Amino acid sequence: MDNLIVQKYGGTSVGTLDRIKAVAEKIARLQRSGKSIVVVVSAMAGETDKLLAMAEKLVDKPERREIDLLLSSGERISCALLSLALQALGCPAEAMTGRQIGMRTDDAHTRARIISIDVTKAVKKLKENKVIVVAGFQGINEEGDVTTLGRGGSDTSAVALAVALKAKQCEILTDVDGVFTADPNIVPEARKLDVVSFDEMLEMASLGAKVLQIRCVEFAKKYNMPLLVKSSFDDQSQGTLICEENKDMEQPIVSGVMRDDKQAKITVKGVVDKPGIASEIFSALAKAGLSVDMIIQNISEEGHTDISFTLASGDCDEAIAIMEAIASKIGVQEIISDRKISKISIVGAGMRSHSGVAAKMFKSLSAEKVNILMISTSEIKVSCIIEKKHSKLAVQKLHSVFKLDKKPRKVTQKS
Amino acid sequence: MDNLIVQKYGGTSVGTLDRIKAVAEKIARLQRSGKSIVVVVSAMAGETDKLLAMAEKLVDKPERREIDLLLSSGERISCALLSLALQALGCPAEAMTGRQIGMRTDDAHTRARIISIDVTKAVKKLKENKVIVVAGFQGINEEGDVTTLGRGGSDTSAVALAVALKAKQCEILTDVDGVFTADPNIVPEARKLDVVSFDEMLEMASLGAKVLQIRCVEFAKKYNMPLLVKSSFDDQSQGTLICEENKDMEQPIVSGVMRDDKQAKITVKGVVDKPGIASEIFSALAKAGLSVDMIIQNISEEGHTDISFTLASGDCDEAIAIMEAIASKIGVQEIISDRKISKISIVGAGMRSHSGVAAKMFKSLSAEKVNILMISTSEIKVSCIIEKKHSKLAVQKLHSVFKLDKKPRKVTQKS
Repeated sequence: MDNLIVQKYGGTSVGTLDRIKAVAEKIARLQRSGKSIVVVVSAMAGETDKLLAMAEKLVDKPERREIDLLLSSGERISCALLSLALQALGCPAEAMTGRQIGMRTDDAHTRARIISIDVTKAVKKLKENKVIVVAGFQGINEEGDVTTLGRGGSDTSAVALAVALKAKQCEILTDVDGVFTADPNIVPEARKLDVVSFDEMLEMASLGAKVLQIRCVEFAKKYNMPLLVKSSFDDQSQGTLICEENKDMEQPIVSGVMRDDKQAKITVKGVVDKPGIASEIFSALAKAGLSVDMIIQNISEEGHTDISFTLASGDCDEAIAIMEAIASKIGVQEIISDRKISKISIVGAGMRSHSGVAAKMFKSLSAEKVNILMISTSEIKVSCIIEKKHSKLAVQKLHSVFKLDKKPRKVTQKS
Repeated sequence: MDNLIVQKYGGTSVGTLDRIKAVAEKIARLQRSGKSIVVVVSAMAGETDKLLAMAEKLVDKPERREIDLLLSSGERISCALLSLALQALGCPAEAMTGRQIGMRTDDAHTRARIISIDVTKAVKKLKENKVIVVAGFQGINEEGDVTTLGRGGSDTSAVALAVALKAKQCEILTDVDGVFTADPNIVPEARKLDVVSFDEMLEMASLGAKVLQIRCVEFAKKYNMPLLVKSSFDDQSQGTLICEENKDMEQPIVSGVMRDDKQAKITVKGVVDKPGIASEIFSALAKAGLSVDMIIQNISEEGHTDISFTLASGDCDEAIAIMEAIASKIGVQEIISDRKISKISIVGAGMRSHSGVAAKMFKSLSAEKVNILMISTSEIKVSCIIEKKHSKLAVQKLHSVFKLDKKPRKVTQKS
């Protein structure tokens, strides 16, 4: 369908009945202009947290299967309400749940992965000129049980539907204008980016940019589905296009500065320095489903060494418990944790062809007397762990040093 | 399964997290005592109204299909929460939606009828010693769309499941102790009935007793599934058993007095008195889905007559509009409506074998100077329309005249 538009509206965009009406008017206008429209919705803002809080008051470690049934209700409600709001405007609309839209997933409850989408029904209804309103975030597994795709899963629902329906792009309507060079709350001069590559967006998402979830971007990259992130509150919003890198793209050396304050560092001291110890530690963490970010192993002294790693601060307690459990096995002397840290990162596809970017970052931080505790790099990013108290300053400094407030001239790629 | 118990908990019984915990403890005890348990739940008290109010703020006449998707969320939430509360007590439990429990309905959205239940999955899970927690009120139609069974539909879900699973009876746990001879708020001496026949309960339900919905009782009668209505708040509650009439049953002449204040009377004056006119009126009302209760046609004067009928006060405006639309066709002079009326009824299986019951009722009302506007009778009930201002007094008087506060001796049935 050449005139197909797939849009996703986030929780704040459908957070109140008035917002739902406003979104319905937007969609009805598009429909009158001759578009075929599939709309994916999140739960009304706060709803998912409210449901989760109820579950947590009942049981410490809730069964994931039941949590999925519980949480999926939030999207069903917003989906039915938006459909009703469209009908009130005389716009033919039909609400569809994850199951009804044909969203099949594996059975990893609360973080299920999409296996397939059978869009037969959706295509039929689109041909009947109906706007399809889809409850995001959810699907069903082979057993027929409701599954959810994890936080921000509605973005992934939308991208997967756009791919299955062969849309030209997938629009993510949210409460911000697009992807920025830094968090405007920290850096008032932060600039909205017009275009970002999938790879950059992946790094940004994993480094603390909250506008899109990693899995959604991964999915979009895998199927080369361009994402247009824009504001649902401002009709003038041009947004940010996230797409495959190409030579015509505006390609600054650094596209953005990210901060992630929800990090913790654990240091395991006095570990016996012999082959297999690191494997012992990180296998135990992986088995518990904990994602470790950076790892440092000190130089060995007298057959012992220290190993430090970082992870999401929410996983810190569990990680410490796991370390304590294997402490005697690997000969640990002490386990130290530090939650007063931040990860500051710079991301830019242009780094591939420019050297000295990391050095410039370290020098700038050092000039501000910001101590760097750990470093990790990839082709298109540099991350540093610093003390949390310096994190705002560091972001502001790096934003200014790399001139992110100014629209860059096109950088010609070295070939 | 000989040890099978099917229970249904109403909205107030699962109205708060504390109530849900209390219900879970009850069920866990039953489970430990070796019972196989299927629990059907309503939405948390107030939830359905809250969802409906949101829909009504968005659109005047909401699509029933979308309303079903919206409202069914309420039961899904309480069902997931109760299942989690059971798991917290170490009681293996699994939440199942209407679809998952195999509840197939026709596609009359918001008042769907159950077509079949495929209990294969339920039986399998019961054999795994799991408590099955079912979201009541909902099913799916052939198209796979969510349907709901109408207000109080969870009772019907429970009875249908009890029938499909061949349970010995179906327990309806609610916020009252059982079925009473009258509303205890009006008649403090009202007595709880130990046993009521299906037929009596059907009359009571249709005459204003709110404890059970008519459709649930119809269903139970059709499949001869005994219903035990009791309190979920009081473990000592013995409740009321609703079952097939039998000779051993306590069989008072009058079992209860009911009041229905939500009635309206419409009088169509000066209708041409010729064949087909009544049919014209009541076909038009039936076509709009309005249920008419009592009908009176006056004696004709000079070729004209008046026709009065009663219906639920909520349908009054629509009925008047329909009468106005056909007024010229049937030669109406005036349409008068009266909402200040009540229907007072006495019900009792013993009436079948005793004459003079209606006369006694009329005489008692007359002694209190209560004017009777309309009368309707069946084998086991007598209903009178009276002015609303007398309704409390009338109930109290009849309760006392028929000695409903006293447990009757067994009445031997004439044969």
